[in-house]
Amino acid sequence: MFITIEGCEGSGKTSAIKELTKLLKKNHHKFILTREPGGPRISEDIRQIILDKRNTMMDKRTEALLYAASRRQHLVETVWPKLKEGYIVICDRYLDSSLAYQGGARNIGIDNVLKMNMFATEGTFPDLTFLLDIDPKIGLARINKNKQREVNRLDLESLNFHNRVRKSFLLLAKRYPKRFVVIDAKKSTELVCKEIYSTIKKRLKK
Amino acid sequence: MFITIEGCEGSGKTSAIKELTKLLKKNHHKFILTREPGGPRISEDIRQIILDKRNTMMDKRTEALLYAASRRQHLVETVWPKLKEGYIVICDRYLDSSLAYQGGARNIGIDNVLKMNMFATEGTFPDLTFLLDIDPKIGLARINKNKQREVNRLDLESLNFHNRVRKSFLLLAKRYPKRFVVIDAKKSTELVCKEIYSTIKKRLKK
Repeated sequence: MFITIEGCEGSGKTSAIKELTKLLKKNHHKFILTREPGGPRISEDIRQIILDKRNTMMDKRTEALLYAASRRQHLVETVWPKLKEGYIVICDRYLDSSLAYQGGARNIGIDNVLKMNMFATEGTFPDLTFLLDIDPKIGLARINKNKQREVNRLDLESLNFHNRVRKSFLLLAKRYPKRFVVIDAKKSTELVCKEIYSTIKKRLKK
Repeated sequence: MFITIEGCEGSGKTSAIKELTKLLKKNHHKFILTREPGGPRISEDIRQIILDKRNTMMDKRTEALLYAASRRQHLVETVWPKLKEGYIVICDRYLDSSLAYQGGARNIGIDNVLKMNMFATEGTFPDLTFLLDIDPKIGLARINKNKQREVNRLDLESLNFHNRVRKSFLLLAKRYPKRFVVIDAKKSTELVCKEIYSTIKKRLKK
């Protein structure tokens, strides 16, 4: 089963995933946790270019193509092999992030970005996508409090931009109701995590 | 006018372009010479990932997406602005290299790679494409003689691969007869360059 976790900056994805990992371990599930972009060395190299603060000249379609390249390599080296071996693969961000950030918020168009990503993914959609939904005002406030990680180029985008990201994510959830589960991320990490885990268990039973 | 120079490894592109540059300067044309992938800093960073010998795990679709990302940035930062200012833009490799190398020779399919590249280029095709055509056996022999540049990952590919590249280039020349000019690259650099320059002059008159 291929599970993705999506959400705006500060939606608490990282904390929720940490908790989820504990629960899955405790219950002896065969799973791996991975993230987008990243994983294999090539994907990490690409990630460095995307997040480099000096790259202010980066065009939005260049960015979308780099994410897709990183995604592709991550599928080939990590996701597909692990799915084949019967693992639950949990991925922190995937295709929907590109659709929401580049397609929706940056106005390239969700369908343009999707079409291009079909080249990268050859049609690999997640079985289950958890959208941690939160008002970006609250989300960004959370980030500013958290000084444990450096602020990167994407964090510097405006609140307006993050509102468009959220709107796009919610639109995708409507478009793909079978795989999307929208979770109110204002709730505590514990409650968010419980909801995710109980949904996974239900799906595994099917 | 947007002009691209294409050809297999060892087809003499570099020498021909050097000669062409001299001719264009001598005749006071307003032109710039650029290359694919490369140009802007971001494109060069991407190029480094593509050519890195350690990246043997690179999937062919990842490679195609990276070339497209580099191409996009190169269009945005270099090609489009210079065309707007009335320059003749001469580009060492462009879209057709992706179609021939990744699409044809690596078997992703020319149309799959083209579709994905429509996202990157938004339909910017060259006005004129010079294909320096040569038997890869002769081309690769030329490269081995030339010790002035390091052998990279792409040079290490088999002769069989380069034969497929050539076949794909010739197929593209048939598909786009209006913009393609196929030049016999066994001829001397001087003759190749003369042929290129006279074609450019004719087109400029139109």
